[in-house]
Amino acid sequence: MTKNNNPLHAKFKIGFLGAGQLARMSALQAFPLGIHVASFSDRDEKEPLEFLTPFSQKGSFKSVEDLTKFAKECDVITLENEFIDSEILSQVQKQSGTPIYPSPDSFALIENKLIEKQTFEKAGIAVTPYQAIENEDELSAFGDEYGWPYLLKSSKGGYDGYGNETVEGIDEAIIAFDNLGGNSGQEIIAEAFIGFTHELAVQVARNETGSVVYPCCETVQKDHICVGVKSPAPVDEKVRAKAQEIALNAMEAIDGKGIIAFEFFLTKSGALLLNESAPRPHNSGHYTIEGCITSQFENHIRAVLGLPLGAVNLRKPSVAMINLLGTDKRAAQVDNAVKSLKGSDGHLHVYGKLQSRLGRKMAHYTLLADKTDENVNEVYERAQKATGNIRI
Amino acid sequence: MTKNNNPLHAKFKIGFLGAGQLARMSALQAFPLGIHVASFSDRDEKEPLEFLTPFSQKGSFKSVEDLTKFAKECDVITLENEFIDSEILSQVQKQSGTPIYPSPDSFALIENKLIEKQTFEKAGIAVTPYQAIENEDELSAFGDEYGWPYLLKSSKGGYDGYGNETVEGIDEAIIAFDNLGGNSGQEIIAEAFIGFTHELAVQVARNETGSVVYPCCETVQKDHICVGVKSPAPVDEKVRAKAQEIALNAMEAIDGKGIIAFEFFLTKSGALLLNESAPRPHNSGHYTIEGCITSQFENHIRAVLGLPLGAVNLRKPSVAMINLLGTDKRAAQVDNAVKSLKGSDGHLHVYGKLQSRLGRKMAHYTLLADKTDENVNEVYERAQKATGNIRI
Repeated sequence: MTKNNNPLHAKFKIGFLGAGQLARMSALQAFPLGIHVASFSDRDEKEPLEFLTPFSQKGSFKSVEDLTKFAKECDVITLENEFIDSEILSQVQKQSGTPIYPSPDSFALIENKLIEKQTFEKAGIAVTPYQAIENEDELSAFGDEYGWPYLLKSSKGGYDGYGNETVEGIDEAIIAFDNLGGNSGQEIIAEAFIGFTHELAVQVARNETGSVVYPCCETVQKDHICVGVKSPAPVDEKVRAKAQEIALNAMEAIDGKGIIAFEFFLTKSGALLLNESAPRPHNSGHYTIEGCITSQFENHIRAVLGLPLGAVNLRKPSVAMINLLGTDKRAAQVDNAVKSLKGSDGHLHVYGKLQSRLGRKMAHYTLLADKTDENVNEVYERAQKATGNIRI
Repeated sequence: MTKNNNPLHAKFKIGFLGAGQLARMSALQAFPLGIHVASFSDRDEKEPLEFLTPFSQKGSFKSVEDLTKFAKECDVITLENEFIDSEILSQVQKQSGTPIYPSPDSFALIENKLIEKQTFEKAGIAVTPYQAIENEDELSAFGDEYGWPYLLKSSKGGYDGYGNETVEGIDEAIIAFDNLGGNSGQEIIAEAFIGFTHELAVQVARNETGSVVYPCCETVQKDHICVGVKSPAPVDEKVRAKAQEIALNAMEAIDGKGIIAFEFFLTKSGALLLNESAPRPHNSGHYTIEGCITSQFENHIRAVLGLPLGAVNLRKPSVAMINLLGTDKRAAQVDNAVKSLKGSDGHLHVYGKLQSRLGRKMAHYTLLADKTDENVNEVYERAQKATGNIRI
């Protein structure tokens, strides 16, 4: 296929590796640029993005051949998760001639939690205390040094609490180490349990035209899953500015092109520790669709296409987002949504997954402040009330 | 096919008759409800909506069979133009069992310009002086009564200046009457030439849950084509409120379900005359995507689905929209768009048509006021500057 040099050409095609809600919401922001969107999925079930395009391909994320075939049909490739090996991406980029952003080189610096932490430390950024763990002695030693409980993580593939275990003592640690694959060759790291007051997030979009840094928001977590977001985060303005500064440094440290979300712990002593990064649009930034002048999805697309980035100011002083998780195992449908649709500046986003199940991310709801003096906690509470009866 | 009663069911499918930019922008607002979108088109060229769905069908808008086959696959049907005969729609609705909104009955009241004017007059709404014309004597008599020039229109099928001719005297009138098909059975109406200061528009969304009325905006016209929109219209607040009131009355007069745009002349003497209605999202309302809390497209979808309607307040005191018309006959692409992408609260929407040609509607640009005291004419001027170099 001949590649289009002008991304605002009617036949320019962006390909998404992954076809879930992140790819779908990105596609919704790609279409207003007049371009085509293609979907690559490895799931049997029809996925959210596949209902938005006539260009869909199924295949394996481990097959260079499958991925290359897809990439050849596209002008540029992006991803909605970080679980494809950077070495595979690099081969696909080479064999297809289609650029992939964020680049395989950027991916290589953060795909592995151990390398990720080392990358950011090298850039002078404080991260959660960690250590690679290879055996029982090291499990004990880490507990001795940083106290119990602490976290064990596989260095690759974890998300939303999967691939992570909190261990209270050495017996649990030994079992978790084995569960996570530590005895079968999986690299395991230990992370100190941080006493934090808030979990914060900052998205950064960046390409050759420049960078934009989104407001620092708070992610509200329950059982390791983000249940909501408050933007701006209800913490000191200086802390938010510092988080934005660190996020920009981290983005530069990995030479990121696209959008990357950076998650922080704000410790009880007021320090910011970089916890994780996600090289894609992120749940913490869903509120930006209505909450900011240009959403994380639109700036992701623009960044990947090499276009100038849009302004990221908040549209209102306070914005809240509530994740709507599956409540029933059934064919997906939203019940009791009336209150969320009638909210004065509230916006429901349903992802189009065919099946719901308990805890599955099915939709979200964003609410903007009604009055300039409504603080973010009040908006968040109002958003909870508007969505409290929803079953999905 | 089994119909879904809950429109927020993952397999609920809305079908669009027409696959142009209006259907495409509507689809972009249907997807966040998690539903499926299907496209019916009669064009050889792949159309804008067809790149946004795996469910596309080609066929004739005159074939009850083609349309019924399509409608049977959908839970509800809507339209993006007013050129399908209401009698055909009525048969399709009956044979498929799939509801069509706005309803064939509503269509029947406005699909023909003569009946449309009679419908609104009956509801006590002032319309542009008009008369059905059957022969040369009547062409003369209309000129004698209302003065030259006046307008001749075919009663069906006109838009953007097509199907309309301005006639300066009887010789031109005779030729135009023939050109428009008056001698071959086409119903022709004459309309007095109104000396107006502004052309205004108001969109109304309505269903069984209620109605919402958008702000009264000004449509800036050049050669019978809308080149831009200013919202709110830079006219007296009372005039805007009056136009909104008339639009709501007109909507009720045709029992509209969906969104309908009403266009007015504001005469030199300050009177409001209802000029035309369009039973679908309308170019005059494109600015509502970012300009209002809920866009005309989203409220159109919600109205058709029977969902509660969203708030329609302006997000900023002033909003301007510029239509970007084709400048070159070529495969479509946007050149020199940088300024429009970097605008602080400016938003480019490209429709994804494959081919551009001089004057074809290819894209639009919406700009919101930067400061609360920036008036709508200033915003409009800034929007013109941001898009002045664009070639498409």
